[in-house]
Amino acid sequence: MGSGRLFAGLFAHGEAAARVSDAALVDAMVEVELALLGALSDLDLAPREAAQELADAVAAGGLELDLDELGRGTGQQGTPIPALLKALRGQLSDDASAHLHKGATSQDVIDTAIMLLAGRALDVALNDLAGAADACAELVQRHREAVVPGRTLLQQAIPVTFALKAANWLSGLDGALAELRVVRERDLAVQFGGAVGTLANLGDRGLEVAARLGERLGLAAPEIPWHTIRLRPARIAAALGTTLGLLGKIGRDVVLLAQTEVAEVSEGGGEGRGGSSTMPHKRNPVGAIALIACAQRGPGLVATMLSAMVQEHERGAGAWQAEWDTLLELLRLTGSASAIAHELLGGLEIDAEKMRADMNLTGGLVMSESVAAALAPSLGRSAAQDVVEKAARRSVDSGREFREVLRAIPEVSDGLGADGLDAALDPAGYLGVSTALIDRALAVHRGG
Amino acid sequence: MGSGRLFAGLFAHGEAAARVSDAALVDAMVEVELALLGALSDLDLAPREAAQELADAVAAGGLELDLDELGRGTGQQGTPIPALLKALRGQLSDDASAHLHKGATSQDVIDTAIMLLAGRALDVALNDLAGAADACAELVQRHREAVVPGRTLLQQAIPVTFALKAANWLSGLDGALAELRVVRERDLAVQFGGAVGTLANLGDRGLEVAARLGERLGLAAPEIPWHTIRLRPARIAAALGTTLGLLGKIGRDVVLLAQTEVAEVSEGGGEGRGGSSTMPHKRNPVGAIALIACAQRGPGLVATMLSAMVQEHERGAGAWQAEWDTLLELLRLTGSASAIAHELLGGLEIDAEKMRADMNLTGGLVMSESVAAALAPSLGRSAAQDVVEKAARRSVDSGREFREVLRAIPEVSDGLGADGLDAALDPAGYLGVSTALIDRALAVHRGG
Amino acid sequence: MGSGRLFAGLFAHGEAAARVSDAALVDAMVEVELALLGALSDLDLAPREAAQELADAVAAGGLELDLDELGRGTGQQGTPIPALLKALRGQLSDDASAHLHKGATSQDVIDTAIMLLAGRALDVALNDLAGAADACAELVQRHREAVVPGRTLLQQAIPVTFALKAANWLSGLDGALAELRVVRERDLAVQFGGAVGTLANLGDRGLEVAARLGERLGLAAPEIPWHTIRLRPARIAAALGTTLGLLGKIGRDVVLLAQTEVAEVSEGGGEGRGGSSTMPHKRNPVGAIALIACAQRGPGLVATMLSAMVQEHERGAGAWQAEWDTLLELLRLTGSASAIAHELLGGLEIDAEKMRADMNLTGGLVMSESVAAALAPSLGRSAAQDVVEKAARRSVDSGREFREVLRAIPEVSDGLGADGLDAALDPAGYLGVSTALIDRALAVHRGG
Amino acid sequence: MGSGRLFAGLFAHGEAAARVSDAALVDAMVEVELALLGALSDLDLAPREAAQELADAVAAGGLELDLDELGRGTGQQGTPIPALLKALRGQLSDDASAHLHKGATSQDVIDTAIMLLAGRALDVALNDLAGAADACAELVQRHREAVVPGRTLLQQAIPVTFALKAANWLSGLDGALAELRVVRERDLAVQFGGAVGTLANLGDRGLEVAARLGERLGLAAPEIPWHTIRLRPARIAAALGTTLGLLGKIGRDVVLLAQTEVAEVSEGGGEGRGGSSTMPHKRNPVGAIALIACAQRGPGLVATMLSAMVQEHERGAGAWQAEWDTLLELLRLTGSASAIAHELLGGLEIDAEKMRADMNLTGGLVMSESVAAALAPSLGRSAAQDVVEKAARRSVDSGREFREVLRAIPEVSDGLGADGLDAALDPAGYLGVSTALIDRALAVHRGG
Repeated sequence: MGSGRLFAGLFAHGEAAARVSDAALVDAMVEVELALLGALSDLDLAPREAAQELADAVAAGGLELDLDELGRGTGQQGTPIPALLKALRGQLSDDASAHLHKGATSQDVIDTAIMLLAGRALDVALNDLAGAADACAELVQRHREAVVPGRTLLQQAIPVTFALKAANWLSGLDGALAELRVVRERDLAVQFGGAVGTLANLGDRGLEVAARLGERLGLAAPEIPWHTIRLRPARIAAALGTTLGLLGKIGRDVVLLAQTEVAEVSEGGGEGRGGSSTMPHKRNPVGAIALIACAQRGPGLVATMLSAMVQEHERGAGAWQAEWDTLLELLRLTGSASAIAHELLGGLEIDAEKMRADMNLTGGLVMSESVAAALAPSLGRSAAQDVVEKAARRSVDSGREFREVLRAIPEVSDGLGADGLDAALDPAGYLGVSTALIDRALAVHRGG
Repeated sequence: MGSGRLFAGLFAHGEAAARVSDAALVDAMVEVELALLGALSDLDLAPREAAQELADAVAAGGLELDLDELGRGTGQQGTPIPALLKALRGQLSDDASAHLHKGATSQDVIDTAIMLLAGRALDVALNDLAGAADACAELVQRHREAVVPGRTLLQQAIPVTFALKAANWLSGLDGALAELRVVRERDLAVQFGGAVGTLANLGDRGLEVAARLGERLGLAAPEIPWHTIRLRPARIAAALGTTLGLLGKIGRDVVLLAQTEVAEVSEGGGEGRGGSSTMPHKRNPVGAIALIACAQRGPGLVATMLSAMVQEHERGAGAWQAEWDTLLELLRLTGSASAIAHELLGGLEIDAEKMRADMNLTGGLVMSESVAAALAPSLGRSAAQDVVEKAARRSVDSGREFREVLRAIPEVSDGLGADGLDAALDPAGYLGVSTALIDRALAVHRGG
Repeated sequence: MGSGRLFAGLFAHGEAAARVSDAALVDAMVEVELALLGALSDLDLAPREAAQELADAVAAGGLELDLDELGRGTGQQGTPIPALLKALRGQLSDDASAHLHKGATSQDVIDTAIMLLAGRALDVALNDLAGAADACAELVQRHREAVVPGRTLLQQAIPVTFALKAANWLSGLDGALAELRVVRERDLAVQFGGAVGTLANLGDRGLEVAARLGERLGLAAPEIPWHTIRLRPARIAAALGTTLGLLGKIGRDVVLLAQTEVAEVSEGGGEGRGGSSTMPHKRNPVGAIALIACAQRGPGLVATMLSAMVQEHERGAGAWQAEWDTLLELLRLTGSASAIAHELLGGLEIDAEKMRADMNLTGGLVMSESVAAALAPSLGRSAAQDVVEKAARRSVDSGREFREVLRAIPEVSDGLGADGLDAALDPAGYLGVSTALIDRALAVHRGG
Repeated sequence: MGSGRLFAGLFAHGEAAARVSDAALVDAMVEVELALLGALSDLDLAPREAAQELADAVAAGGLELDLDELGRGTGQQGTPIPALLKALRGQLSDDASAHLHKGATSQDVIDTAIMLLAGRALDVALNDLAGAADACAELVQRHREAVVPGRTLLQQAIPVTFALKAANWLSGLDGALAELRVVRERDLAVQFGGAVGTLANLGDRGLEVAARLGERLGLAAPEIPWHTIRLRPARIAAALGTTLGLLGKIGRDVVLLAQTEVAEVSEGGGEGRGGSSTMPHKRNPVGAIALIACAQRGPGLVATMLSAMVQEHERGAGAWQAEWDTLLELLRLTGSASAIAHELLGGLEIDAEKMRADMNLTGGLVMSESVAAALAPSLGRSAAQDVVEKAARRSVDSGREFREVLRAIPEVSDGLGADGLDAALDPAGYLGVSTALIDRALAVHRGG
């Protein structure tokens, strides 16, 4: 079933995808049942042999579980757990069977298994994001001198450096990383409440079992089951969504910078990548496009997760079920985008010369704010702006170089002198606190 | 890759899912390449032998295409087509290879293949929806006498019949069907424009090839390629989304009617379906839950499709790619929900007795509007309402039966007489134009 | 309450916004009550004087309705209708009061009033979209000769004309128009069902009243009330959403074409529009940005409308209420974007010279597919591609002009001759069926 | 412009709405300009008199700012700031005018003003949410003895207490509160970067001004401007979205519990609230419906915010602008839902008797898991389940009371005795660790 293999290079790149596959999910469900049996036996609520029997079967890799059979079972019972239990029981002794799944409800197993997968996929994604941030920090360090037009609303405004552009990305990457780490720490948890969250089937021992189950699985045991209080999955989804949005922003910038007419950056990746046999001049920014494509799919999936929070009584009738594939898809997309961002930023090639050339495209007009600022002390802020605006218009209308027009204006030549004017027209001289900002972003990164 | 098999019983039920699988998509891509080669050869733009060679290879089932290899290719080139072409060329003669894919761009193949899949999945869904509508019409016919409380804001209001409830569903099903048929007719189309939509590689023959390609594939040849004008996929998605919403409404109603406290309907489905081994009294409405779950996932996916309409120049950089899995998922969900609705409505069991009992839950208070209406001719509309309101309050406060309270009021006994009051309190007598509405819905259904 | 006035120039431009304002909505609600009273009186179910009294009060403009009072009433009763009726009754005679709202439920009034507003806002939007399409057709006609690089994934690919780019927009505009017209025709309808859709309060006269009400309001009377079958508002929303997506695509293209480095188009709009006092060289594409901004907000709102389709029994408890502001916002945004698109396309300035210059940016490499196509007859398709690919790589590596490199290759000079090579390198000669496509788009537009 | 006043009782209830109104936004923009002028003057970058002049004008309430004029300005320039500055300068001396807005870009003012509003609306919402949580804790305390059927998939499962249901809500409210507090602390920040984030216009003093600006406004000064790194607004939106989802869950539960057939809770609110004149028995759960309605609108708006993260270069062209109304709407909805939840939970009335009655609806079948658990020690877990399942089926088929059927089974009477059976059938005896869970939730609440 399911599409996705064909487009895996964009949407399921890297290791995370395998960690949230159907096979991984079944394995995690068995793992939960095994940990539960273990916890029960730790607390003398099940015989040690029952737990051992299942552990041995799992270790031997000998369990036979037919994914499609389980899928059909989901259609019959609403979850795959009854079919899974039946399949397991068919391979276990009566005694082990009798204690399997004791105290648990299907939702306990599914929610906990998905949490296990979330943790494992997040670990990969965090690793790749950290790698991406490191690669980005490298770019920041390496391109401090690369002056490039700052662009607002896609119009050249005043200069920045490529290092500052990359420092912005870096601050975003570090911010996304920090948030995902919080989520990894705070929101992953065991689900264990039995049919309606009271653990009634375990008498007064339920909380001990829950605690032990959490320990065995490496997941927190929350103060209360969260069957229909869905803050945890919703927050994980939201953090994945903001991460995807951030990566999409980087992708968008790279695609724009890689345009044929701008050509200030290009993706690495070697022979053939992003090339076209019939259009040999093309070098498609495949990685950046993948980032945008992954990001494009995030918001709708997060919306599904948020709308699914409105669940009924002690078990949601439809909304909970809608979470399953949706959260796994978000993990897959974030994992994929993180891996791609890591590669992309690691291989990004910068053309500082083209950046300089673009800086000159407007014949210096892009420096008018700088000239006005330089003139302000002598002329006053308003008068300085007036003079520059008029000069700019004259330059545009006449086609004469902005510098020449300015030079011919007495207030300018008197106010600044030739050197002063040259300085005011030099992009490298109008970068404000760029260096300080870059250093701050790097400091945060190192401290992060 | 991809989750979904484990939950297929809810989200990939019925035949449609298989028609939008990865394997089906690759097959459709090959089919497009084959139809293109055929069209070229029809028009003497490629040798007949080249087309025949590929046709033979396809017919013999002898093509070897590794989905995961293609998936990796997507990561390298942004689409699976270069890898697919390479794989095909490796299995074709030089001559056939040389004419393969002539005039086309990757997007032509992907968009057209997805359109083929959309048509095939829609056919299944339309069939199931038509079956669901027929089953619903049956329910309407069968339960004309089943009076049941109409409920607004989940509070009992005044009576309806179950037939009218089902007639509402029926009008929705017929409406969704009509819309999907329009989409099937209007929005499926060949994509064929070459690199930038000019078909330049085919000189002045491009439109002939496009037309022939459409004929061979059974798809319309649009007046102009739609590479970045995405009305077609967006409309298909929107129609799928509204269909899912409609099916979710039916699911919600069934879940509510199946509540233990309401128990006016239950799903069929035989032994074991929706049961719980530990809670034998339960009969979970699994089908209805599946409808809600599918519906819950629709809006986010449609939002992705709509946001993906904003594509750049002659080929979208990210947004187009985001459409692929999203549209296929929408087709899968709609197919699944349609199949489930068909089964659900076909097997729905109605408890008319419980409906009657629920009608009496408020001790007749639910009929107060009816009594007021009956009193209006004699007392005037306002006075009649006043009298009834007071009586209702008295009944609630005193715990006396509403009928008794009313009987004791002179204006009522004088105005209506005992028989008139009984009539006014009889739910079956306060159904307005229900019968006419039911007949209208059935007439539309038969005509549809 | 409500933000929006401050940003109205982007999101509430043109006439449509006023047509969906709070004031317009209250007016429409009163209009519905008036039409209902009229319909009742037409059918002798209410005294003619009652209808006349309300009509006179409305005509005299003398009704006092405090929006904030009504808003508070919504918090008390869940809809503004009880408070509205109370306010109206306070200004009417007892007799008119008694017949006011007869047979109707709050939802009847709200749904019908919103449908009235939808029709009125759609009329404005349709008008502006038609104007935008006409302006676009003008652009198509005027710029047939303007050759410009076709861009895929924001990389130059092979040539198109600006006319073809505009023809793509045109086909989208005409498609969106056609769809909105279908929706305007098909999906607007009176809502009239009484408390639970049976019109019980009107005995057996309900359908006559519904029909008459529709006539008086200029809205269709549907075969059955649609209280919780929400296909109508969902479809309107979906069509608005696809229209916004289409307009966003045009906006995106304009923003990209207006980039300082591309500068192939600029928005008109006169002095000061989109300018920056401190950066006089800037000319921000404000209209295009507005289109993107409106489009950005569409998908989420449509998702809300779709998810709101899942309503309970005979009246939705929350989902219906969520539709109100959402649909009105979609109408406002579509109206605004349509008006802006009309102005934008009417004033768009094209720099054909810059387009030509951009066509030459790659030193002819962008024409390599054309050269390969020209060589194919003599060398065979594969060999031709090989030759061209090698030449392209040599040109890139050596920095020599592509034309020179090609000329030096015997197969090329023999195969094509100098003139043939020049022809193959001429963008205007490699436009495929552009002209035919343009004519088709214009023909559809004229026929539309 | 803008709808919403008419429906304010649902979507703009409480104080938060006024804090994010158009008027409040303009005031905040002026406040930002004033704080900037103050910061500049603190650092001797502007004359103290200039700052004082604006402060006096603001304090005197004498500024004339026409919202609609500003709205039109947004259409001309893309933001309201140029028009705002023009209006302000028209009311200031030349000197003050000259220093107004120095160093800032429009985005600095808008983003910072929205952050101010966000903080103020969040404060109200946090207060109401804390009140709602306190009210919920009261419910928990008060209804520890109220046994009620736990319901999964809307089917009765096994017993819980109303206190446990409320404890689940409480844990959700406390979780949402904690998250919003984190966001309030972490994500609100000054935006101050000048045209492209370099603060070039202020030479090397930019960061000092930013820090001072933050102090004056009570907002953090971030390490780097966040013009197009939109983690902050996206996170705020996500936290608002999860809060809305949580409140929607509470609303859904209340609506379901308030159903006529369930009637276990009802909303307070006094005479007339939620009543219907024509259906006096109705008591619509208006507050709960409002919660659902607000929650329904959240996900789409959050999706818009997330999709808007993909912004270009140094200023977003469309996506940023789409954030404005969207974030304010999310603040308004969350504020409204929080206020409503506070009132709803404070006034919620519980019918413990009806809960008990519902507990008996299945004639004890709902206790079968309990009986099986009680039998397990003597019969073994599987055999116990078998016996109970058969008894349950017999009870359903024969219509005999479950207790009687069980009593007649030797294994049961022998295994449990009459008292043991009664105990096993007593809902109050099968509540597992409910009390401990309740105490945990209360402890977290007190500690929070």
